[in-house]
Amino acid sequence: MCSTHVVSDLTELLDLLSRSRVYDLAQPWFTGMPHYPTHPPFLYSLTKKHGDLLADGGVSSAADSIALGTHVGTHIDALCHFSCDGKMHGGVEVSGIQDYGRGIDRLSVDTVTPILRRGVVLDVAGPLGVDSLPADFVITPKYLEAVCADRGIAIGAGDVVLLRTGWAKFWNDPGRYITGGRGSQPMGPGPELEGARWIGSKGVFAAGSDTVAFEKVPSAMAVHVHLLVENGIHIIEALNLEDLARDGVVEFVFVAAPLKIRGATGSPVRPVALVVGG
Amino acid sequence: MCSTHVVSDLTELLDLLSRSRVYDLAQPWFTGMPHYPTHPPFLYSLTKKHGDLLADGGVSSAADSIALGTHVGTHIDALCHFSCDGKMHGGVEVSGIQDYGRGIDRLSVDTVTPILRRGVVLDVAGPLGVDSLPADFVITPKYLEAVCADRGIAIGAGDVVLLRTGWAKFWNDPGRYITGGRGSQPMGPGPELEGARWIGSKGVFAAGSDTVAFEKVPSAMAVHVHLLVENGIHIIEALNLEDLARDGVVEFVFVAAPLKIRGATGSPVRPVALVVGG
Amino acid sequence: MCSTHVVSDLTELLDLLSRSRVYDLAQPWFTGMPHYPTHPPFLYSLTKKHGDLLADGGVSSAADSIALGTHVGTHIDALCHFSCDGKMHGGVEVSGIQDYGRGIDRLSVDTVTPILRRGVVLDVAGPLGVDSLPADFVITPKYLEAVCADRGIAIGAGDVVLLRTGWAKFWNDPGRYITGGRGSQPMGPGPELEGARWIGSKGVFAAGSDTVAFEKVPSAMAVHVHLLVENGIHIIEALNLEDLARDGVVEFVFVAAPLKIRGATGSPVRPVALVVGG
Amino acid sequence: MCSTHVVSDLTELLDLLSRSRVYDLAQPWFTGMPHYPTHPPFLYSLTKKHGDLLADGGVSSAADSIALGTHVGTHIDALCHFSCDGKMHGGVEVSGIQDYGRGIDRLSVDTVTPILRRGVVLDVAGPLGVDSLPADFVITPKYLEAVCADRGIAIGAGDVVLLRTGWAKFWNDPGRYITGGRGSQPMGPGPELEGARWIGSKGVFAAGSDTVAFEKVPSAMAVHVHLLVENGIHIIEALNLEDLARDGVVEFVFVAAPLKIRGATGSPVRPVALVVGG
Repeated sequence: MCSTHVVSDLTELLDLLSRSRVYDLAQPWFTGMPHYPTHPPFLYSLTKKHGDLLADGGVSSAADSIALGTHVGTHIDALCHFSCDGKMHGGVEVSGIQDYGRGIDRLSVDTVTPILRRGVVLDVAGPLGVDSLPADFVITPKYLEAVCADRGIAIGAGDVVLLRTGWAKFWNDPGRYITGGRGSQPMGPGPELEGARWIGSKGVFAAGSDTVAFEKVPSAMAVHVHLLVENGIHIIEALNLEDLARDGVVEFVFVAAPLKIRGATGSPVRPVALVVGG
Repeated sequence: MCSTHVVSDLTELLDLLSRSRVYDLAQPWFTGMPHYPTHPPFLYSLTKKHGDLLADGGVSSAADSIALGTHVGTHIDALCHFSCDGKMHGGVEVSGIQDYGRGIDRLSVDTVTPILRRGVVLDVAGPLGVDSLPADFVITPKYLEAVCADRGIAIGAGDVVLLRTGWAKFWNDPGRYITGGRGSQPMGPGPELEGARWIGSKGVFAAGSDTVAFEKVPSAMAVHVHLLVENGIHIIEALNLEDLARDGVVEFVFVAAPLKIRGATGSPVRPVALVVGG
Repeated sequence: MCSTHVVSDLTELLDLLSRSRVYDLAQPWFTGMPHYPTHPPFLYSLTKKHGDLLADGGVSSAADSIALGTHVGTHIDALCHFSCDGKMHGGVEVSGIQDYGRGIDRLSVDTVTPILRRGVVLDVAGPLGVDSLPADFVITPKYLEAVCADRGIAIGAGDVVLLRTGWAKFWNDPGRYITGGRGSQPMGPGPELEGARWIGSKGVFAAGSDTVAFEKVPSAMAVHVHLLVENGIHIIEALNLEDLARDGVVEFVFVAAPLKIRGATGSPVRPVALVVGG
Repeated sequence: MCSTHVVSDLTELLDLLSRSRVYDLAQPWFTGMPHYPTHPPFLYSLTKKHGDLLADGGVSSAADSIALGTHVGTHIDALCHFSCDGKMHGGVEVSGIQDYGRGIDRLSVDTVTPILRRGVVLDVAGPLGVDSLPADFVITPKYLEAVCADRGIAIGAGDVVLLRTGWAKFWNDPGRYITGGRGSQPMGPGPELEGARWIGSKGVFAAGSDTVAFEKVPSAMAVHVHLLVENGIHIIEALNLEDLARDGVVEFVFVAAPLKIRGATGSPVRPVALVVGG
């Protein structure tokens, strides 16, 4: 009977989940956290403290207010984040569909449905015997293929593929996280166009990394253009992939649900990786 | 072999998910959306439009900035949101652990791990033959028990239990959503202490509703105190439960991951309900 | 000759200003400062610190971001802040001219020209021999007339008239400033309708106080309606009048320039009082 | 008698002010207004509209919330905005006195007292017969001296000196205002180090312009370092100097009062120029 079948499937799903380890892939949000210089930082204040206002029976509540750029902290880029020659993914013209107060009318982050997909993480730093990749390291297809071969990873269409550089550990040292600790410009490891093409050729749903930008920085943003505009592949940045790497996880269910911010080019998100059994 | 087993479980989980319907339980965020008067509204602007700055090759990007109260839109209350006589859940004293700039040091929303639990929705409005409950409707245990009996629902310890009033449809009419459209004060249907005790007795992880407050409003906030402070049960508000009700869904896997905002009393969240098979 | 005359007048004005004492009538803005519960609190963060990014020659800069309600801290109310029966001052209908993202199209704070006017302060607390008025004190015409008679103050049309309650000193104790330190509701001294009528009858440009609301709180906001809607008199709140009171100043030039926030109902402002000679 | 003297001086000051023309030197704030890419944009929303909540007697109010970088719109730079080799003006070390949540402990904008000083505007564009200077125009001492000679302007110690480029008219065209309308980088006219030295040698209190940066852009920020760090001269940016130029005004009383934002590196401000008689 149908309803029995449903219950039994639900029970099975709950059982699988109960046997899963849940990896938290997000960084925390706090005043002073790293942010790319062109994106507004994270602001926070309590709006009231316990005891500011006391109701009958000694009841009190506290609440807070925040402000931030939509690309600050662990976040996803909507396809409307980039354009080339006035056109977004699928040839959608930006002209006439953008407004400061309303955002972008097409391909915005509120159109991204909740993500429940196969995920894989390619630990680029680990096999090289370093805690973290150098700030000027280019993640070329050679490195990506080596990791896949070594760990027996096959990337499938629709997957979410994450690259680990080891930079997540710099989260509490914003200068280091953004510039690598040297000089005045944002700088960090990542793929260039060649790596983006390799990823794009897999037909994945999204690509992510543990760096402030899924792209070797500084750059002309060719990776963002190739993935978002030319291939319709979402980008997820500022992930924390350290726990996955520590445990040698390569494959999981990736779960994330961007906030449906109408017209927005991105959204903060707290993704999780579900690893069943083991 | 272990790794084979892992892969096979992952395959099974992915297979179950691929056969699931995903219900989006969040409302959209946009300038002018409803918000309880004491919580800061949602603010939005593009920080730049496509074409404001053009890089080589015609590349351009757009980005945005937002500001909002942490209890604005679909959100979860951390246990530190309420206190009674200076104590939060578990007797944790608020004195000395709260600061406007740093938030609350204990029981804050960044300590809430990602939620993957059995969920049930109790459609209170449906059986009464109304689209939405009246603004002064008290959801008493009598109504909750009737729904459970009628639909064969058993609430289990650790579940997430959601109450549907039908008010989600007023989201685009903020005056109606907040006050019921009458007079100057926030007003809306929900449980009072008796209903909260009934829910609390089930030992659930979280209780939620499709209203701005999980509590008949106006009130002395006895429900919040009973759930958050006395029972350690989280509260989720401003959900959209219309799709679940339309399809007669009562049981599902509830998935939500609050943003880890350090010290915060709440977080916006986009929950989903997974309904397997059918 | 005209230009000589101009220079000489300018010299005279500069000379008068150089002989003036400048009283700062604003409170500071900082995270955790008092705010009326329905208005968003003040948020602050550096966007970058010195040294986060270092340019050639060791050059570095720091910058910041803020968020706040427009009625938070020392601020002025535009005439569009209140309405009665759907009409603002002068019978302007609110219907059709308000939008969450655009604000109010008429009587908004960006239409308030810079204020350079005669100011008088009526110290209500001083003559009563108290540092600050009790939280439930009603400032009736009797008290206002007594101060005027005692100090020889004549209020003129177009003046800015400020009432001192002594509450400015509670600025660093937000609970006290907002509620008087008792119970859960905003509470504080101020005029009721009778006092508002007395002020309104003088034909002043603006009325202000050193409290969070120019109105005895709690109230039905009759003072705001009488001044803003019925008489077109601006309101300035959360002033610091302690220095004026300490020095026994009663008359001065009041200078303030609201930020031209398009469509807004209010603006933060830092007013000064210029006292010449003495 | 002293008090008579005071009143008579006050009367004289009020009389002079009543005969003054008041020039508004600020640009309006609105969603979508220009902002330097590294500073957070201006955000706005009503928090409630008239009619959202109706009190007895048909009373209703509207209010708003804003967020912005402190260097967005017409604003003043505090001396703590820049440092060189870890030192701010006067050799104050930045180390240990800066914190994301608290700002900078020394030389911050809340230490700037209200400004009431002689002001002069040097119209650089006008004598060149252009509406606005080209985007790559360097304002050298030669141009400044020519304007002074031509208009008989002597800059005095403690003055506020403003440079007009004519760019204020681009305020409603943010792309043009920030980049000059060409390419992807901020660009605009202004002084380089040589011009800054000329201004610095005058011992002025503040220097301002009608551009997004008081500095030829792009640059290594030598002007900011020279004025703020080496000379303790404040900078005021994004002024509107068109009305002064139209009327041929060169000399005035400059009045501005930055918001006392504790620890901040800058503040929005609405300056006015008072021109007496004529």
